[in-house]
This record gives sequence, C-alpha cells and structure tokens, in this order.
Amino acid sequence: MTQDLLRQNERIDQLYSQNISIIQSPEVFSFSLDAVLLADFAKGPVKPTGQMVDLCAGNGAVGLFMASKSRGHILMVELQERLADMAQRSVILNHLDDRIDVLNRDLATITDTIAKDSVDVVTCNPPYFADLPSSKKNPNPYLAIARHEMTTNLTQIVMMTSDLLKMGGRAYFVHRPDRLLELTRELAEHRLSAKRVKFVYPKPGKPANMVLIEAIKDGKQTGLTVLPPLMTYGSDGHYSDEVRKMLYGNHHAGQND
Amino acid sequence: MTQDLLRQNERIDQLYSQNISIIQSPEVFSFSLDAVLLADFAKGPVKPTGQMVDLCAGNGAVGLFMASKSRGHILMVELQERLADMAQRSVILNHLDDRIDVLNRDLATITDTIAKDSVDVVTCNPPYFADLPSSKKNPNPYLAIARHEMTTNLTQIVMMTSDLLKMGGRAYFVHRPDRLLELTRELAEHRLSAKRVKFVYPKPGKPANMVLIEAIKDGKQTGLTVLPPLMTYGSDGHYSDEVRKMLYGNHHAGQND
Repeated sequence: MTQDLLRQNERIDQLYSQNISIIQSPEVFSFSLDAVLLADFAKGPVKPTGQMVDLCAGNGAVGLFMASKSRGHILMVELQERLADMAQRSVILNHLDDRIDVLNRDLATITDTIAKDSVDVVTCNPPYFADLPSSKKNPNPYLAIARHEMTTNLTQIVMMTSDLLKMGGRAYFVHRPDRLLELTRELAEHRLSAKRVKFVYPKPGKPANMVLIEAIKDGKQTGLTVLPPLMTYGSDGHYSDEVRKMLYGNHHAGQND
Repeated sequence: MTQDLLRQNERIDQLYSQNISIIQSPEVFSFSLDAVLLADFAKGPVKPTGQMVDLCAGNGAVGLFMASKSRGHILMVELQERLADMAQRSVILNHLDDRIDVLNRDLATITDTIAKDSVDVVTCNPPYFADLPSSKKNPNPYLAIARHEMTTNLTQIVMMTSDLLKMGGRAYFVHRPDRLLELTRELAEHRLSAKRVKFVYPKPGKPANMVLIEAIKDGKQTGLTVLPPLMTYGSDGHYSDEVRKMLYGNHHAGQND
C-alpha cells in the first residue's frame, strides 16, 4: 500500500518528532529545515472548528508537521500540480485525509474557493528570492518556482493572507532576514501587525539566515517581541539541542540516522 | 584639578576599556550599558576631517566612548543644560576639548548651527518611551526627559539625523525592540536604509531588550544583515565575555570592581 503511493524517483522521509512520513523527490521538491522551523514556531488552531491554510505548500511539509499540534481543518494550497499531488499522497500516507485537503490552485484566486475573513491561521514558506532579470535560477522549473517569485510575490502572498484571515487571526511566515523590512512593510500595509519574530542563525558568530514572524490581523501596530535566538548548529558542527528536538523529538530517536 | 570639575552629588566613573572618565550623577543622569553597546556597535569617522554628531547626548557617554576609535570632530547635542554642562566637564576631564564640542540646544533647531548634508556619522541613544497620557514618568524631570519623548520624538530625531547626514553617511541608534518597526518605517520615510541590526538579549532564553541599528543615507532599501545576537549576561548570571570586554577591555582590568 505504501509503495503504491510512490512514483518514480520518490522516497519517503520521516519527521520523527511528529511521527510524520512525507513523500519527497529531490527532482521536484524536498522539504528543508525551514518548513520544520516554521511548523514548530507557528501556533495552529486549537478548536475542532479551526481553519488553517498553508500557502505555497510544496509537498505539504508545513501542514503535515502541524497536524498533530493543532485541531480543525487544514487546507494546503499549491500551484504546481506535481507537488500538490505529492502532498495529497502524503496526506493519505499519514491517514490525515479527514483533516487535510490539498488544493492545486494559484493562491491569487484562493478567495474564490475560501471565504474572506474565515480563516484562523495562515502559514507560508514562500519563494525567498525576488524574480529579477539578473536572478540566476535553477534550470529545474519545479525548484526555480519554489525558490524565486516567478508565479507569486511577497505583496500578493501578504494580501491573500490578510484577505483569508479573520480579525484577530494569525499569520506565520519564514523568510530571509534581508527581506524582513519589505515583509513588515507589506504586513503593515495589509492590516497585519508583526507581533513576534525569531531569528535563526546558522551557527554562533554568523549573521541570521532565516527569520520567523507572527502577525495578527487588525492588531495594534506596536509591541513587537524579539524571541530568543535559535542556533541551527552548535560550535561543534552538530545540530543544536533545540533543532535536534524539532527533528527527532524529546527522545532523540533516529538521532544517528 | 579633577575635583574642581565636580559639582555636588557628582562622581567620576570609568569606562576601563576606553580609558575614559565620565562625570555621573544619579540625581540627574548616569550612562547605562545602552551607551556602551551603541558606542561599541557604531563606526565613527576614520578621516581627520570626519564630522560626527551625537544627538540626545546626555552626559556625553557615547561621544566620549567613541573618541578613541574614531578621528575628526565630535559634536554632542543635549537639550538639558545641567547634562550638557556635565558632558562639557567630562570632555575637559579627558583632555578631549580639541576634538569634542558640546552644544546645549534642542535638536529640532540643529541645522541652524550645522550645515545640512555635512555630517559623516550620527549616533543617538534616544528616549525610549512614547509620551502618552497614560505614561508613568519619573518624578525627577531630568530622568523623565531622558526616558520619555517629552521634548522630542522618533520622527523628529530621524528627520534631523537624515538632514544632517551626507549622502552615504551612517546613522546608529539603540532602541527597544518593541519600537523597531516604527524606527525602520521612519528611517525608510527619511532617506535612511537600515543595513545592519544587532539584537541584545538580557540572558539566554529571554526576548531581546535592546536593538542596535545602522542605517545609511540614500542607500538601497534592501539587504538587511541581522548580526549575531549579543547576550548581556550568561546563564551563570555574570556579564558575558563580549560585554565584559566592552566594559573592561581585553585585559579585563577592573573586572572585580
């Protein structure tokens, strides 16, 4: 049964901490630490009637990772058919098809399907790089679209996020620090107030290479909290305890995989 | 001679790392770690013709601390006469009166004295708290003005900073993280681009309580670098090595003071 869900050049990876299996393919998309960090940082709905939407869902990693720590319905929105199909099969593989739906759709038209002002939580691990004429892109179109703003951009993502969210609803993004101020400006222009940020540093002594951000719709535009920093690797070159726990759980099962 | 420079209820403190003596008075103003962090973070002019201005100078700590690592002229601007007078006496005490001037003036009128677009570096450790009707202020007016935006505010400070700076000139601020987005918005609206930020955390596991920021006049509004985090105290409750070095220098002289 499990093997029936796999297509050519796909494999199943595990996120041990959440006991989630996820279909991966280096040819088209593999989740990275960014998705694990975002899912760990974000707070999903806690009510059984909760509605969560994951935009730019890729192979569904963020939604799958958040399933066990939230309640309610999760909708994954992914433009690329091949990736949406992988996400759908991972949902089945984890027996989460009663809680998670996958929508193969351009997020620009998402409010045709989901009512405005109806969603409790939106998560998004967007393409990080602006699509400039000078941008060097991966020749593989699946990876290029996942990394560069070829089919969407930050303004559009933030606008659709705001449209979807209820008043008081929460949005969670992971992005590169060099685009943080662009992101916070877009948030402020679209009724979203940044409330908590957490910077992720590759290792001690290096600048941050990721930022996690929580914003609230129609919240006050003041009162930002900058959470304790997260180090990906310790000075010994191994994952920090905090990251190891996200990947392998409290018991560090699979630590030597 | 040194004692002649002291008024009632004043004392002389040392910043050992910079070999600077500074006149303090708990009744009117004492510099805090914020000034040491800002002076350490900021890059002063390196040319003998360099022009640096320190706004909201207080008792002159930032300018005095930066004197040994920069060249050129430093102008300290302080509204409160009593504090400007303390700063002036500390300048004399450190034999820096050939390089540092103190101006007892409202920064709002500063371009009457200093030509617009003429300054290489502006530093400022501003009042941190908005002056709201609900604000609880220190009954001591010296301290209240230093902490609350009673006589100036962030918009005005950023505007005057931008007016003073040459194209390509650099501004350095220390502020509270909860006002970071207000600060970056003001910077962007006044031809200043945030380029580097550094968050200061009181100790491991706690949110940041200070942010240091470098901005460039007429620079590109992209490319923010988030520098490695700074911990004030280690988990052992003592100053971290990095802060100890800022206070006591490489040899940790005076470490047990």
